[in-house]
Amino acid sequence: MRIDILTCLPKLLDSFFAHSILQRAQQGGYVEVVVHDLRDYSTDKHRRVDDYAFGGGAGMVMQIEPIARCIRALQAERTYDEVIYMTPDGERLTQKTANGLSMKQNLIVLCGHYKGVDERVREHFITKEITIGDYVLSGGELPAAVLCDAIIRLLPGVLNDETSALTDSFQDNLLAPPVYTRPATFEGWTVPDVLLSGHEANIDEWRFQQALARTRDRRPDLLGES
Amino acid sequence: MRIDILTCLPKLLDSFFAHSILQRAQQGGYVEVVVHDLRDYSTDKHRRVDDYAFGGGAGMVMQIEPIARCIRALQAERTYDEVIYMTPDGERLTQKTANGLSMKQNLIVLCGHYKGVDERVREHFITKEITIGDYVLSGGELPAAVLCDAIIRLLPGVLNDETSALTDSFQDNLLAPPVYTRPATFEGWTVPDVLLSGHEANIDEWRFQQALARTRDRRPDLLGES
Repeated sequence: MRIDILTCLPKLLDSFFAHSILQRAQQGGYVEVVVHDLRDYSTDKHRRVDDYAFGGGAGMVMQIEPIARCIRALQAERTYDEVIYMTPDGERLTQKTANGLSMKQNLIVLCGHYKGVDERVREHFITKEITIGDYVLSGGELPAAVLCDAIIRLLPGVLNDETSALTDSFQDNLLAPPVYTRPATFEGWTVPDVLLSGHEANIDEWRFQQALARTRDRRPDLLGES
Repeated sequence: MRIDILTCLPKLLDSFFAHSILQRAQQGGYVEVVVHDLRDYSTDKHRRVDDYAFGGGAGMVMQIEPIARCIRALQAERTYDEVIYMTPDGERLTQKTANGLSMKQNLIVLCGHYKGVDERVREHFITKEITIGDYVLSGGELPAAVLCDAIIRLLPGVLNDETSALTDSFQDNLLAPPVYTRPATFEGWTVPDVLLSGHEANIDEWRFQQALARTRDRRPDLLGES
């Protein structure tokens, strides 16, 4: 899989892709993430990529020209499954969306910044608009990193333990059950006896009941009971 | 405002807090963000902070001891309004939550990693659990960065233009209207005439109608019409 990220602030993403599973995934050849600085595609002598909004008002708008040039340069080299724009008014990212995108070959992810991109970019170049949640951030760089993390950890071979992702929250519409590790007693606070019993069937049953109870309590909507 | 972030992977967050508005906010004295490496609070000679889950199963669990030591060391120095744990089964982050947290003085944000933290941490130390959305990530570091971004950009003085945040999506339960910038015509694609008219009242009315139409189309739930 290849993911091309288009941004006017590439440095924001440096440490994120240089560590943790995203580093391992790239070193292992499971994914190639390429961050493009939109300023490299500006025709302006000051490498500007934004300008004032037509009609006035606060906040700058990202221009269509550098974005169009960058997307077309990439599309000339390979076929992209999706050209994604990270924006607060996009479709909400879910585990299902992440699962689906993890099966694609090539993705472009455009990060909005300032007041967003010129609407003509969205009309003519973008195939999918995604938001990571109902809150406003200073740019699409963190959301792009979130999207990449959600997708890349699902690629076969990336997680150390293949079964780990399958027991995460949301994969089965249940929140994960509580987890405990050593010490068994900390300042008088103990671990549930069943987890120390070694009785596998009882442990599985306890975990399922805990996951169900937690989901009913916190997120009944996941069970279709809201 | 002061935000203390507790993580076992502090390097992940380096570039994020060193750039963009989060850097400016810190340099301007609006916020102090301190990232703590939980390994510094481990009593293990290999600085371990995780161990196998009681009851078996895939994935490591973050131990209570280093977390308890770090939180207590911080709480000995000042009073914290909230001790927040970033976890997929927490309360969903909304703009309203971000608005509320932006008015606090001191926050601790604990990043989960691996399979999460020992449940006793949640029972005895955490006052608020937050998720940034219904998807699983490799850790709580990106969600912590998202939370900080959402909060810090709301602090008075942080954004260059004070009015900018007020016209963002969600602040008035409407998605933002389309934005355009130069050139007025790009490869035959034009900007709506009204935005070039200079007629302020017409522009305001057009933007409101566009915001309303976009919200009805994409997010009727925000209008209570879903």
